[in-house]
Amino acid sequence: MPSTSLNERGNFQFSEAHEKTAAEAVARAAEDLSQFPQTLQTTTVPSAQETSIMVADDKLPERFQWVLNAPEPPGLWCKLQNGMTETIFPLKNKFQHLREHQMSKSLGNLFPILSWGKAYNIKVFRKDLLAGLTLASLCIPQSIGYATLAKLDPQYGLYTSVVPPFLYAILGTSREIAIGPVAVVSLLLSAMIQKIEDPVANPVAYTGLVITVTLFAGIFQAAFGAFRLGFLVDLLSHAAIVGFMAGAAIMIGLQQLKGLLGTTKFTNKTDIISVLAAVWRSVHDSWNPLNFILGCSFLSFILTTRFLASNILQTGRKKKKLFWLSTIAPLTSVVLSTLIVFLTRADKHGVKIVKHIKSGLNPISVHQLQLNGPHTAEAAKIGLIVAVVALAEAIAVGRSFASVRGYHLDGNKEMVAMGVMNVAGSLTSCYVATGSFSRTAVNFSAGCETVVSNIVMAVTVIISLELFTRLLFYTPIAILASIILSALPGLIDLNEAYNIWKVDKLDFLACIGAFLGVLFASVEIGLLVAVGVSFVTVILSSIQPGTETLGRIPGADIFVDVNQYPMAVEIPGILVTRLKCALLCFANSNCIKERILQLATGKQEVGDKGNANGKTQLIVFDMSNLMNIDTTGLASLKELHNSLASEGIEFAVTNPRWQVIHKLRLANFVDNIGRRVFLTVGDAIDACITAKIA
Amino acid sequence: MPSTSLNERGNFQFSEAHEKTAAEAVARAAEDLSQFPQTLQTTTVPSAQETSIMVADDKLPERFQWVLNAPEPPGLWCKLQNGMTETIFPLKNKFQHLREHQMSKSLGNLFPILSWGKAYNIKVFRKDLLAGLTLASLCIPQSIGYATLAKLDPQYGLYTSVVPPFLYAILGTSREIAIGPVAVVSLLLSAMIQKIEDPVANPVAYTGLVITVTLFAGIFQAAFGAFRLGFLVDLLSHAAIVGFMAGAAIMIGLQQLKGLLGTTKFTNKTDIISVLAAVWRSVHDSWNPLNFILGCSFLSFILTTRFLASNILQTGRKKKKLFWLSTIAPLTSVVLSTLIVFLTRADKHGVKIVKHIKSGLNPISVHQLQLNGPHTAEAAKIGLIVAVVALAEAIAVGRSFASVRGYHLDGNKEMVAMGVMNVAGSLTSCYVATGSFSRTAVNFSAGCETVVSNIVMAVTVIISLELFTRLLFYTPIAILASIILSALPGLIDLNEAYNIWKVDKLDFLACIGAFLGVLFASVEIGLLVAVGVSFVTVILSSIQPGTETLGRIPGADIFVDVNQYPMAVEIPGILVTRLKCALLCFANSNCIKERILQLATGKQEVGDKGNANGKTQLIVFDMSNLMNIDTTGLASLKELHNSLASEGIEFAVTNPRWQVIHKLRLANFVDNIGRRVFLTVGDAIDACITAKIA
Repeated sequence: MPSTSLNERGNFQFSEAHEKTAAEAVARAAEDLSQFPQTLQTTTVPSAQETSIMVADDKLPERFQWVLNAPEPPGLWCKLQNGMTETIFPLKNKFQHLREHQMSKSLGNLFPILSWGKAYNIKVFRKDLLAGLTLASLCIPQSIGYATLAKLDPQYGLYTSVVPPFLYAILGTSREIAIGPVAVVSLLLSAMIQKIEDPVANPVAYTGLVITVTLFAGIFQAAFGAFRLGFLVDLLSHAAIVGFMAGAAIMIGLQQLKGLLGTTKFTNKTDIISVLAAVWRSVHDSWNPLNFILGCSFLSFILTTRFLASNILQTGRKKKKLFWLSTIAPLTSVVLSTLIVFLTRADKHGVKIVKHIKSGLNPISVHQLQLNGPHTAEAAKIGLIVAVVALAEAIAVGRSFASVRGYHLDGNKEMVAMGVMNVAGSLTSCYVATGSFSRTAVNFSAGCETVVSNIVMAVTVIISLELFTRLLFYTPIAILASIILSALPGLIDLNEAYNIWKVDKLDFLACIGAFLGVLFASVEIGLLVAVGVSFVTVILSSIQPGTETLGRIPGADIFVDVNQYPMAVEIPGILVTRLKCALLCFANSNCIKERILQLATGKQEVGDKGNANGKTQLIVFDMSNLMNIDTTGLASLKELHNSLASEGIEFAVTNPRWQVIHKLRLANFVDNIGRRVFLTVGDAIDACITAKIA
Repeated sequence: MPSTSLNERGNFQFSEAHEKTAAEAVARAAEDLSQFPQTLQTTTVPSAQETSIMVADDKLPERFQWVLNAPEPPGLWCKLQNGMTETIFPLKNKFQHLREHQMSKSLGNLFPILSWGKAYNIKVFRKDLLAGLTLASLCIPQSIGYATLAKLDPQYGLYTSVVPPFLYAILGTSREIAIGPVAVVSLLLSAMIQKIEDPVANPVAYTGLVITVTLFAGIFQAAFGAFRLGFLVDLLSHAAIVGFMAGAAIMIGLQQLKGLLGTTKFTNKTDIISVLAAVWRSVHDSWNPLNFILGCSFLSFILTTRFLASNILQTGRKKKKLFWLSTIAPLTSVVLSTLIVFLTRADKHGVKIVKHIKSGLNPISVHQLQLNGPHTAEAAKIGLIVAVVALAEAIAVGRSFASVRGYHLDGNKEMVAMGVMNVAGSLTSCYVATGSFSRTAVNFSAGCETVVSNIVMAVTVIISLELFTRLLFYTPIAILASIILSALPGLIDLNEAYNIWKVDKLDFLACIGAFLGVLFASVEIGLLVAVGVSFVTVILSSIQPGTETLGRIPGADIFVDVNQYPMAVEIPGILVTRLKCALLCFANSNCIKERILQLATGKQEVGDKGNANGKTQLIVFDMSNLMNIDTTGLASLKELHNSLASEGIEFAVTNPRWQVIHKLRLANFVDNIGRRVFLTVGDAIDACITAKIA
């Protein structure tokens, strides 16, 4: 423990011993100094203090003074306050904004629709109309399918494609994103909510709970944006999302086998082993080949058109035609299969059909909210998880398209938009909506210019709800399953996973951790594993106790890692070392101390055999990349200095950062090492070399 | 999600859009370049690729080539392998050692006693003898007291002062450390073991469990040392140990009130609220003033002598005399109080006495080990915690004295020594022994030269065990309590706590967390809080998303933080920025991206009003202190570059470290930014300024 101050019983003796050691050190230092004659940099008059080899203040060149007399950095409270102010109340900037710009621009800032609305014309609208109709053709079957995945009645999926897109169109900044229900969130909702309420036995309570979760998710999302807590979404790293999405896609695919096989008995669990067991049981018990044939044939149709559109190189018109074909393939499948079933009455031969879909616009759902129920707390918890996952998906997809189009997406504003649309959605029978990967890509490819394509889509869905729901009576469930299945390959990004593996092995660990977690445990565990692995990675790379030796680069006074720059030359007798991490803290300081000592004394042993010049006489510790140091680190530095002094090796420190020099001063380390703190390695070595030549 | 690669449906369209954007970028770049005429550094022929503003490879000065063509850093597997080899099997070095030195020196390495044993003489022995006897006078009453604290029979404390010191004397490297039972470990053992076995109802099973835990602790300690896992002990930071020790000392002190008040009913819990409640109940119910008076008067005697010895300035002999007086005060108190009780038969008036202490040497305790019992797993768990705490105390105290005397303590060797002595101890009726703070200080102050003082102490304890245990029959328990109480102030290091507060506020949080955790929850929770807070601190300082602006220092081509060096000058039109953290990762990359964008465009707005030179035309991102970057960070860098390019701002990167340049290359970022990767900020700016002047 107290490595510097010691306990009562010992105190008075220590000072004696300390003086004795100090005296010895001085004697040794004096011996050393006989080799290093008096220079401007060092005073050689040994005093009774350890600071005898201290560099005199007034003789220092200006630059050294600058290093030693840096202003005090802002304290912790000040930093916290600033951080809070910047993050939560960026009012100062806002007011400035108001002054500088017109009110209208500021309003346009709040409602992006006002900014681009003015320049909107019929030509742009035609493009948006086309994109919106394309979107609707994909959205209607997907919405019904995803509602089934979320264990809700099919109309809830359609409801969710009405209110949220409208609100997003007013509040959102992304131009390409397609709002509505998505596969992963639907799976997440059903997986977590059916643990507390059975969707089959108690569908009303289950639906109410889903809507309550939607309310909470919306509130959380809006709060994240309003309080600028967007970084919470960043906790899911890119790699984690890739792994998580792939795992979720496989789980969703397996769940769809229920529809494809036409079975009724299936598991409620979401780990791969339970689901595979359920599939196995279904295959042996009660599957219906008609469903399977129907589903598979249309799945092949959709996938073939997509494959043709994306892979066969064709120019101009043909390519465009194929794109439209692949885009309307899902709707075509629905229409064709419904017709087939209607004409052949295949539902009487075991083909499962959607049956009744309630027609009419979104009903108000305020009465369904369970805000005083027994599960409210759990609903809030699930709401939080769903909010983060939904935001992660929407922002990832929004950002990637904004980057392609070269505009900037304000994450916090997006979160507010998402939050408001989900809160409003929860009051109008919608479940959690977010930006969909697959539909956003289609929207973009179909040539959307603004978010008006979302409005077009919503209007189309409203018309379908009012007029066409009864036409979907005979739609086979196997077709919905195959439409969901056809959207899944977009969620599995093997290419990106390979890139992650290539660039960063540790990041890949988070990716594969999330993937396996989702697959073998549950969706929540997968998320937890991903975040956990990511943070362990952060800790490990922050505290890895490596050091690197620096050498002078030819033709310049710059010192660089000799491994990275093989042409750099080490200076005999001088060890210039730098950390491979940014923190000198409890977890690594002892290791680092021992490593530097080993380097110093190891070199010395080798030097004993060779020429006398090879003996390490000076260790320069380059602190350029040291961001912070804690009390354990400071104690280790002191111990290192003591040990080196007892070996007769000098110790200098260069380029400490603001926080570090401040702490070194507070802990008296600067005085301990005789103020040998320099700005550059060159400066530090100059003192030594000048002394040698003289 | 896939911010770079996108999903199937969009693919073929993206390439079109991408080309379009690229073409726009090229057009914009060409406009920019009309202001920046053609130089050696940049080729101005716009091509259809985004790499149009790429710096031609062959025209680069040598130094740029060095940056770009660094050799590949060792991969993760290679690093892991090396780490494992270095940590666990440092055989290569060992064999080298064998070759270089004589066999005897190597043996001396294993058994340090052989190294200093040769030079040992009668003069040194006299000093050690004196120190050893002093140690014994303090050790005997403390051992009995600590055994009571651990809820064992008093003789176990004495046993623990026999075998471990002998073994440590042979294997250990510290010269001053005093081995034996210590207060904190005793408290820890009783607090954790009495949860699974009642020491009053089932003393034999309890003792067996304590001995089993000792065996496990020894095995863990030896394993830590043998496999060079010493860093596990480092997880308890300096600050955490200060807080933990202070909290434990207060808990021990409160526990001693039981003895001081002479009550029988007391709580088994170790949180301050339960203990204070128990004290309150005792005071109201069944306390005996005689015990209290006896205890308090001798406590004042011990503390007074200590205070006199440590605080009153006296020279030479007088000071020495007072030191001896303060050192033998505890033994004197025992002898005097025992005599008083024996003569007055005060035990018949309610003074609690030690009664029978089993005499004779340590019995073999192999049969007491519970290796197949129901609690073996829990014993192993407790053994692990106790091992870490015991090692932390021993190594902290060992290091601080080694640092005072100026020699180096090998942590791994110490751990093996501690482990072996505890394993041997568990076979001979000892409980966990370690280095004691208070006794080590006394040993040092009494003038010990080598670890022989421990042997002298052990021999003295053996003699006491054989001959004098019956003399301790009438020793009042209140005296033992007061001796323990008198040792506690040494564990509470207010001075150091203040230092920690002064130097590092976050570190202080770990300190106070451990303190409050021990006080209000339990010893384990305190440890957990300390480790938890320490790691959260590491994470926070690794990912804080700050940037700092750099300026050129007058008279040199060095760029430094303008806040730390107020004399540094920013260059108009150029923003040189550096991170305040060492990782550009998922948790901070988005924040950092937005901050740099804000800085760049914010500056631009101000510049619009002022002179045209004020417009930010170049952002130089100094990566000097960036240790690592993950895939999310790389994606953010790409987005940052795209956004800056669309604003017409150039982007250059300087001084990437080994891992970073490697990843930048792998992710094609080097090509993306037109190979604008330089060694120094000066190099990067030169390209821009040269172009301007021309």
